[in-house]
Amino acid sequence: MLTIPLDTHSVTPLYEQIYLYIKSQIQLGHLPYQSRLPSARGLAGHLGVSRNTVDMAYAQLLSEGYLISSPKRGFFVSQISGLASIRTEQGISRPAPAPREKEYRYNFSPFSVDLTHFPYHTWRQLSKNCLDDNNQLFLLGENQGDLPLRNAICTYLHQSRGVNCTPVQLIVGAGVDYLLQLLSSLIPGDSLIAMENPTYKRAYHIWNGLGFSTCAVDLDDQGLKVDLLAASGASLTYVTPSHQYPLGIVMPIQRRLELLNWAAEEENRYIIEDDHDSEFRYKGKPIPSLQGIDSKGKVIYIGTFSRAIAPAIRVGYMVLPLPLLRIYQERYSYYSSTVSRIDQAIITGFMEQGYFERHLNRMRKIYKNKHDVCIHTLREIFGSNIEIRGENAGLYLVIRLKSSRSEECIIKDAEQNGIKLYGLYEHFITPPSDYTPTFLMGFANLSEEDITEGINALYPVWNNQS
Amino acid sequence: MLTIPLDTHSVTPLYEQIYLYIKSQIQLGHLPYQSRLPSARGLAGHLGVSRNTVDMAYAQLLSEGYLISSPKRGFFVSQISGLASIRTEQGISRPAPAPREKEYRYNFSPFSVDLTHFPYHTWRQLSKNCLDDNNQLFLLGENQGDLPLRNAICTYLHQSRGVNCTPVQLIVGAGVDYLLQLLSSLIPGDSLIAMENPTYKRAYHIWNGLGFSTCAVDLDDQGLKVDLLAASGASLTYVTPSHQYPLGIVMPIQRRLELLNWAAEEENRYIIEDDHDSEFRYKGKPIPSLQGIDSKGKVIYIGTFSRAIAPAIRVGYMVLPLPLLRIYQERYSYYSSTVSRIDQAIITGFMEQGYFERHLNRMRKIYKNKHDVCIHTLREIFGSNIEIRGENAGLYLVIRLKSSRSEECIIKDAEQNGIKLYGLYEHFITPPSDYTPTFLMGFANLSEEDITEGINALYPVWNNQS
Repeated sequence: MLTIPLDTHSVTPLYEQIYLYIKSQIQLGHLPYQSRLPSARGLAGHLGVSRNTVDMAYAQLLSEGYLISSPKRGFFVSQISGLASIRTEQGISRPAPAPREKEYRYNFSPFSVDLTHFPYHTWRQLSKNCLDDNNQLFLLGENQGDLPLRNAICTYLHQSRGVNCTPVQLIVGAGVDYLLQLLSSLIPGDSLIAMENPTYKRAYHIWNGLGFSTCAVDLDDQGLKVDLLAASGASLTYVTPSHQYPLGIVMPIQRRLELLNWAAEEENRYIIEDDHDSEFRYKGKPIPSLQGIDSKGKVIYIGTFSRAIAPAIRVGYMVLPLPLLRIYQERYSYYSSTVSRIDQAIITGFMEQGYFERHLNRMRKIYKNKHDVCIHTLREIFGSNIEIRGENAGLYLVIRLKSSRSEECIIKDAEQNGIKLYGLYEHFITPPSDYTPTFLMGFANLSEEDITEGINALYPVWNNQS
Repeated sequence: MLTIPLDTHSVTPLYEQIYLYIKSQIQLGHLPYQSRLPSARGLAGHLGVSRNTVDMAYAQLLSEGYLISSPKRGFFVSQISGLASIRTEQGISRPAPAPREKEYRYNFSPFSVDLTHFPYHTWRQLSKNCLDDNNQLFLLGENQGDLPLRNAICTYLHQSRGVNCTPVQLIVGAGVDYLLQLLSSLIPGDSLIAMENPTYKRAYHIWNGLGFSTCAVDLDDQGLKVDLLAASGASLTYVTPSHQYPLGIVMPIQRRLELLNWAAEEENRYIIEDDHDSEFRYKGKPIPSLQGIDSKGKVIYIGTFSRAIAPAIRVGYMVLPLPLLRIYQERYSYYSSTVSRIDQAIITGFMEQGYFERHLNRMRKIYKNKHDVCIHTLREIFGSNIEIRGENAGLYLVIRLKSSRSEECIIKDAEQNGIKLYGLYEHFITPPSDYTPTFLMGFANLSEEDITEGINALYPVWNNQS
């Protein structure tokens, strides 16, 4: 008869204690193959528990295959080889948490955004309304994204970016990284992808990580050199024509047409247009998208709400040309949406009720002021020692510094003065032969005062007097 | 001098009307290369608008590359070849919306869940608290998922599924489909993946869609036949050991150890454990996961909140063995999280504050009652004409029907009676030689009354009297 130590005060039910005890005895080999267990009635009497308690323990052991039951004869230990290999140690030591990023007094990150003016109240209200209105939102929605959201995005893209698409061509997904992964399944695996040099390195890493070959194509002051692109043998190119990342170049109409012509020459050629920060242009109208002037269905248009709403809203969108849409629909249309339906409904409300446009207009003014303060202060403090590029758009400026010191060395110096700078150099795939220290100075998440102070604090660093 | 038709009552600003007019004249070829534009001052006078208005229009045309400015000489049309190819038609006709799925009086879908008992009030409250508390949630979070959520999931998996992992091994992602795509980048592209036959066809399609070779391995009453798996030459296998989808088989301990031994034989072998509906077991305790008894780091554990919380919450999780974790960290750790941070915070609160456990316990009771009513009614109505399998767990039963008619024919018959049935046959990769009509009868989203009525309504269909 099994004597099982039972703790009647434990939170673990009695049947579970019995089950765990017998299981461990089998695992340790103390109850070998073919051992006969006491009858449930007998064991219950022995342990002073109800018959039902033992029945439950035996049933669980049967379900998991530790016991077999033989009609009229009772319960026996199953044949289980290799039990010794069952992990008994439950402790994998928990590694120390990743070190937090160092805090800087002035962080000129080109990726940061200003969330102090985010319409939190509106967002909360929309969120509340969505949850109140519609419990259907907890059921699975459309794979490409719910139609109201796709409609709202199409309307926005058409009106503000000149993008020409229907909701059928639009796929809503959990961020640009995800959309690039999805896109990678729609193009031949042996495609050579041409990247701008310098470029958005994350996209470059994603393509390489997905097993694609990439090549670097140099830029001139109009953006990607299409003759070099043609010579590269690439079938796809990843570009940022409305505000080149990182250099801030606006690709003029002539170069855009050359690029479209290059794509039109062969059936499998496509242009991936990453329209990353086109919402923010401070002079005149936004530059219309490349997709909008493409008559041959050669442009894959990608955008995100990370800058226009908030980075934590993991929502991007991709407009597919019809041939790629067909492949998506044939092979991948069963992929479930990667965006929560409730979030989709909140964003839809935000767009449909005019909050998005108002928010963009407001942020455009706020960012323009910061942009202007940044330029003004830089000119005032550094005069002709610097050259400013990529102005009038986006959330950062490109600053070339006349200096005999290396970019790396200047960044280190700045760090010691509590200032985080971001160099251009690391954005190159193939390094330029001739290089002047250049910094991407993000102004979005600093107040106008901090921009002024931060640039003043840079004075000794950039003039090598620190 | 250009005479531009201006509408002072239009919502389009005057500068934009001038810009659009000149742009269209260039695109149409009416203003050819090298045409000189009137001076801004002259045109302003001619049109009766302010000088600034014309300056803005010219600046935009300069930005987009339609004009070039020559110091002292003025503005000229740029050299733009291929303008004729610019799309002028803006109308892609919008296709008709996809037809809605037919509504049935009784839908026995094995994938549906019961959301009538979802704690909407709690969810709203948590959602409100998250938005009120912490505007930081709008900033980008950790790529693998925020640590509090990973901690909460680890604790849950350890306590209720016996999974042995640290938050470092856990990746939170936008649903199982996404996690399988991510996993596909961590394993060699030429891997052969063995699927259970029958299986979860969506996973099968995903692997094939990602370019992997797959093979089908037959099951016996203990689940996947490991000798056939070994003979297949596969290096990975995708299994559902705690409640086989679709057959509902619980893989006993002996077979689990055989499977782990198979994986341990070679370095590149792994087992993907999809623990799809393990939260719902109606007899005894949940069957512990395969991952929990794996001492060699051979099991990739995948789970989702789709059934335990709601399908629209696009959140799943994957536990990686250390060798795959290393590959992920080396190559893909820069991928941004695919789950909104606010959603992560809501789920974390739901788990940490005990709501999740309470919800699961409540739903387990509700589903058990529906499960019992379903079995009881089926036995009462159809007696020995049917065989019930896969009971005591999950959200559907597997019903084999003694019938001379084909499964397809019975499903059509049922449809005409307003009943949606789901056949087993389509879950096979290679069809069985001997097949009896079998149905997966989901009971989750039907009331107990509807289950009883629906099964009664099936009587003429299954007895061929309709």
